[in-house]
Amino acid sequence: MIPPERYAERLAGLAAAARSGGVDAVLVGVGPDLEYLTGYRAMPLERLTMLVVTPGSAPVLVVPRLERAAAEVEVRTDVTIDTWDETDDPYALALRDVAAGPNEALHLAVSDRLWASHLLRLQATRPAARFVPASTVLRGLRMIKDADEIELLRRAAHAADRVVGQIAAGRLVGRTEADVAREVRERLVAEGHEEAHFAIVGSGPNSASPHHDASDRVIQPGEPVVLDIGGTIEGYGSDITRTLWVTGGDPANGPDEEFRRLFELVREAQAEASAAARPGMPAERVDRVARGIIEAGGYGAQFIHRLGHGIGLEGHEEPYLVAGNDEPLAAGHAFSIEPGIYLEGRYGARIEDIVVCGRDGPTVLNRAARDLYVVDG
Amino acid sequence: MIPPERYAERLAGLAAAARSGGVDAVLVGVGPDLEYLTGYRAMPLERLTMLVVTPGSAPVLVVPRLERAAAEVEVRTDVTIDTWDETDDPYALALRDVAAGPNEALHLAVSDRLWASHLLRLQATRPAARFVPASTVLRGLRMIKDADEIELLRRAAHAADRVVGQIAAGRLVGRTEADVAREVRERLVAEGHEEAHFAIVGSGPNSASPHHDASDRVIQPGEPVVLDIGGTIEGYGSDITRTLWVTGGDPANGPDEEFRRLFELVREAQAEASAAARPGMPAERVDRVARGIIEAGGYGAQFIHRLGHGIGLEGHEEPYLVAGNDEPLAAGHAFSIEPGIYLEGRYGARIEDIVVCGRDGPTVLNRAARDLYVVDG
Repeated sequence: MIPPERYAERLAGLAAAARSGGVDAVLVGVGPDLEYLTGYRAMPLERLTMLVVTPGSAPVLVVPRLERAAAEVEVRTDVTIDTWDETDDPYALALRDVAAGPNEALHLAVSDRLWASHLLRLQATRPAARFVPASTVLRGLRMIKDADEIELLRRAAHAADRVVGQIAAGRLVGRTEADVAREVRERLVAEGHEEAHFAIVGSGPNSASPHHDASDRVIQPGEPVVLDIGGTIEGYGSDITRTLWVTGGDPANGPDEEFRRLFELVREAQAEASAAARPGMPAERVDRVARGIIEAGGYGAQFIHRLGHGIGLEGHEEPYLVAGNDEPLAAGHAFSIEPGIYLEGRYGARIEDIVVCGRDGPTVLNRAARDLYVVDG
Repeated sequence: MIPPERYAERLAGLAAAARSGGVDAVLVGVGPDLEYLTGYRAMPLERLTMLVVTPGSAPVLVVPRLERAAAEVEVRTDVTIDTWDETDDPYALALRDVAAGPNEALHLAVSDRLWASHLLRLQATRPAARFVPASTVLRGLRMIKDADEIELLRRAAHAADRVVGQIAAGRLVGRTEADVAREVRERLVAEGHEEAHFAIVGSGPNSASPHHDASDRVIQPGEPVVLDIGGTIEGYGSDITRTLWVTGGDPANGPDEEFRRLFELVREAQAEASAAARPGMPAERVDRVARGIIEAGGYGAQFIHRLGHGIGLEGHEEPYLVAGNDEPLAAGHAFSIEPGIYLEGRYGARIEDIVVCGRDGPTVLNRAARDLYVVDG
């Protein structure tokens, strides 16, 4: 549970960042930014709900009148709530008290996940304003997880670890990927997630599609299964990937030579990159550590995605561990490290943990074994 | 199941609407518009996935390379798939072949639910272009449900009807709203929904908060419970509200005189408005029918929201039944009709059905009784 005083600190931090960034107001719609700043997890809807953070003024939350009672209960910090009726113009209301600094055009930041329909209405209401994503002023705050946030990420990681163990110990052969995915989702909730968000179950050739969902394909003996699963606990995400090889009980159906070799490269790349993450290291350099190992093994062209992504109230958020991102890691950054090798049409493997960058080095939150899980299935 | 040929028809319809609306390209991100046009239900992520529909050219779907295999499986119509790598600029790729008509500034439509972060990047890529919401050219198509869509809405409605019956027949007194909401969600899935999206359980004074979620409040004998629940079947939503009064088994705990009176007004307003919906009638006029009845009963100021919203691949979509919307209803429009009366701090009531406007008049999809459910609980 995030202590209520944290929200006031975050709002003050955002106002300060806006002021120093020359932003006249930050307009935060429903989504993770709003939850981060106020604790309010509202449904994203066509009716505008918008937190307006203006340096030097108290934050105002604009809500449809019928949401007022819900907002009063769910907002966990001190903001003024301003309501609009069904036939009012909520965009004019949100922007009513927003003014440019002296001698400048209005500079407004909007939450990254705000719907385009809302942004276009805001732009039409203030056509001369310059709009930027709110992440330009909010990212510095959101990237640094405090101890309570890390504890939630840890709880989520451990819950997901348990589900991996349960699935690996259970029956797989003869079941569809979709059926296994259903079981994963149920177990994520049973282990304490409030919601299961994804359950990638890629068997056989589907293991070579990194974002394969889960199909009606029936799992066979003698093939890999990539499990990439996650959900949220109090809004904070889990995200773990493990690779299984299902024998059906016959040792002759074990992994072939090439699979063992590519898996070993993935394992080494994942371990080395996890160990390398520390404050001051550019995000892209961690990607490079893993990619270098996989390239040296001859599979560089088959590692077709970035190494990882930040995680918190969003399943994917900053910092991204990707070539071109020279953002230095800092204590409190939390991110996935998930190299993979994918031989299209044949098979693939990936290992993923959530890692927190600490002052003295990395802490890996997941505890599930990172070996190839050779199971009867 | 939507037949695959339907997607090609929709894409052609959108291209025609874009042409006649002077729109040079429609840029459709992940979300209901993409699902409507291609059947592809992708996760909304920071990596750009974008369908580009340009009048006179074949539609192109821009996807991150790691999503290609998933997109090839899930897209149910014939579109060209173009991939980008982690360090490419996907916005430039999406806009590469988009050009303005003769002598005009580029006019681009973006899907209403596109994230602001994506729209701002598109605007930066084409700073001279004029951007409008895609609904301006797509709404006419999406509002008119075909027979397959109506059948899915009907299945979802009947599944939700059954859940209302089950909850009304079960135990309520002594349980928290949140516990009942958990049961609602499980039953929605057990009755065939792929996902439960919301379960408002508002007991006692919480019944006066239309968008109350479900709290730790324990349900007591002698008070109302408003249930407003829904989920999706093959993407299409259910959304039903019924009002219960829980006696705890003691007839002395029945509804008081005022509650009976306001409930009767809601029931009459809901029935009259449902019967009134027919082609050519302005959407706001249906709202007026219900509001007139409630106003005449003296509770106009306590009916604090619009009468209803369209429903389909989105839980709330056009047409909205609200003052100021003179859109004429047409055969194939599907929407909620859900008047309510809310006495703040005391109690409230609402009844909601999904109604389809047919050529000869309305069809109410829900079959659950619309009376006040006076139950032992």
